Amino acid sequence: KNILIVPGDGIGQEVTEVGKSVLVKIAEKFGHEFIYDDALMGHAAIEATGNPLPDETLAKMRASDAILFGAVGHPKYDNDPTAKVRPEQGLLKMRKELGLYANLRPIKLFDELLGASSIKPEILKGSDILFFRELTGDIYFGEKGRKNDNNTAYDIAEYSRYEVERIARKAFEAARTRRGKLCSVDKANVLETSRLWREVVQALAPEYPDIEVEHQFVDSAAMMLIKDPRRFDVVVTANLFGDILTDEASQIAGSMGMLASASVGDSTGVYEPIHGSAHDITGKGIANPLASVLSAALLLDISFGLKEESDSIIAAVDQLLKDGFRTKDIADSTTPADKILNTQAAG
Amino acid sequence: KNILIVPGDGIGQEVTEVGKSVLVKIAEKFGHEFIYDDALMGHAAIEATGNPLPDETLAKMRASDAILFGAVGHPKYDNDPTAKVRPEQGLLKMRKELGLYANLRPIKLFDELLGASSIKPEILKGSDILFFRELTGDIYFGEKGRKNDNNTAYDIAEYSRYEVERIARKAFEAARTRRGKLCSVDKANVLETSRLWREVVQALAPEYPDIEVEHQFVDSAAMMLIKDPRRFDVVVTANLFGDILTDEASQIAGSMGMLASASVGDSTGVYEPIHGSAHDITGKGIANPLASVLSAALLLDISFGLKEESDSIIAAVDQLLKDGFRTKDIADSTTPADKILNTQAAG
Ligand SMILES: CC(C)[C@H](C(=O)O)[C@@H](O)C(=O)O
Ligand SMILES: CC(C)[C@H](C(=O)O)[C@@H](O)C(=O)O
Repeated sequence: KNILIVPGDGIGQEVTEVGKSVLVKIAEKFGHEFIYDDALMGHAAIEATGNPLPDETLAKMRASDAILFGAVGHPKYDNDPTAKVRPEQGLLKMRKELGLYANLRPIKLFDELLGASSIKPEILKGSDILFFRELTGDIYFGEKGRKNDNNTAYDIAEYSRYEVERIARKAFEAARTRRGKLCSVDKANVLETSRLWREVVQALAPEYPDIEVEHQFVDSAAMMLIKDPRRFDVVVTANLFGDILTDEASQIAGSMGMLASASVGDSTGVYEPIHGSAHDITGKGIANPLASVLSAALLLDISFGLKEESDSIIAAVDQLLKDGFRTKDIADSTTPADKILNTQAAG
Repeated sequence: KNILIVPGDGIGQEVTEVGKSVLVKIAEKFGHEFIYDDALMGHAAIEATGNPLPDETLAKMRASDAILFGAVGHPKYDNDPTAKVRPEQGLLKMRKELGLYANLRPIKLFDELLGASSIKPEILKGSDILFFRELTGDIYFGEKGRKNDNNTAYDIAEYSRYEVERIARKAFEAARTRRGKLCSVDKANVLETSRLWREVVQALAPEYPDIEVEHQFVDSAAMMLIKDPRRFDVVVTANLFGDILTDEASQIAGSMGMLASASVGDSTGVYEPIHGSAHDITGKGIANPLASVLSAALLLDISFGLKEESDSIIAAVDQLLKDGFRTKDIADSTTPADKILNTQAAG
């Protein structure tokens, strides 16, 4: 099996190294042979080639069985809204070119981290949400530009029935293997794309009579997520809403530094932390590598079907936390100094 | 002064009655003469006239000095994404026709409700955020429709420099009267409208050298809002992001039932709870009327410049809470049964 390592930018580089080292250990332990290669993306790729997703990287991606990805981004572009070439273009192009239409973001709290969240433990306890974020459509990929002498900007959001149906089916099917509840999030009281979304989900529901379906408006969902996270099982939503809600939901898991995601579609899968490149903490050795480690676990499970191997990573993370070890983002005033780990050690 | 009362649908009708009764009492107490009229909107107006914002209502709105509004919406339309006439069209049309481009949503926790939130009291204590949500542009008002034989839906998001500048200026000016911090929220790493947004805010910043400006991506802002709400003072953002973030932020205030908003622009102002029509609890007498009462307070302050009158309403709400009275949404297991109020009594 070929695994492509794409660290990207900022802390992406630090944490992906750790994620990879866990893959190496697991292969050793379970007697697998994984072949690794790596490639540039984002700001790192722009610096080297002028292109945030060089053809060479894309070719390696297509040839891989799975991709462990870090993060892309750089403050330089954020502060210059007029920049023509941007790291995120590479990320979006990768998603589109590889047909990664389904982004799975499991939000599950390790019991040991109950106290690490800003949300009350009694509200959180037992929360376990699986997000399906549509990843190759919506306002991310529609036409965008300027008009009226550069005085007006526009972005077009678009969804086809086909695009909604394939992500919704994945979510319905996942709900079957979980608690049988599906919440579809849209803004159907305002957006036409959301009305199509709702129509399609409603039309599919009779095919899954065992699944309890509800529809929530995105504003209300943003509120309920933190008011009562346990009411959610599987959530399916559009690209932009999924981006916002899953970052918000990261607080349910104590820290963004704990959350892994899988982007899958028709061919290879991409596994990555949901956090970004975080240049403010890059190079300090304090980034939490567990999101990348857990991304490696998702990779083994989803792309390779290696459930036992995947579970053993999750168990190791659990044990690490039980032993009281913490990176800074999940430490609190009760964590003894000698249990505060740096990025490498936590891996 | 003319005040138009527009209860709308669902609990909008119950709570607006209470909001109005408070205006009546304040006028008595302070010796003002307010003239009231009322008008239909939303589902109620569709039932009566076929139109969610009848011309008569719009004419009365234009003639008013301020409007106390409830909420619109009905599950009937939510469950039928193909409905051509919808209550929300009335709301959006009102905002556009009256030029209500600035929606102010103050998120402030009454100390007494520190425990009512799902967020930890030590995270919340002292939070005080003022949102400026742009209200007449973005994906709410761009062209929308279907194509490809009804198989594709689209919505166009649009902003002009002028639209961004006028809301940003309001936010900068408000920051001056508060703690001097402005956070502009966008998704400039993906959206062209957001890049224009960021350009305009950046270009204005030198005119307000006393204001500390930061830019946050909406996903990150959704996370930080609940992780560390005290870092925010004034927040300015686009229509859709503002919709989502302010509902989320309602948890900072303990309950959505406590939050009032003001929509202002070039002429009359509209004051309304941020909650919706909530048909699930309509008619049960359990709706929290304090959002409407606090909307009345905003009305007196912003549209009529009656600061003392406004403050006396806020003080009365504070006293009610200090006396231990609660509606169901803000009650907890420690609230004695005889302190749980129904909608009317809470008013
Ligand atoms: C970096 C950015 C373009 C990206 C997105 O919005 O999809 C990120 O926030 C994510 O969630 O993967
Ligand atoms: C009812 C709906 C159209 C409205 C909006 O999205 O603006 C509401 O959620 C609000 O925030 O006032």
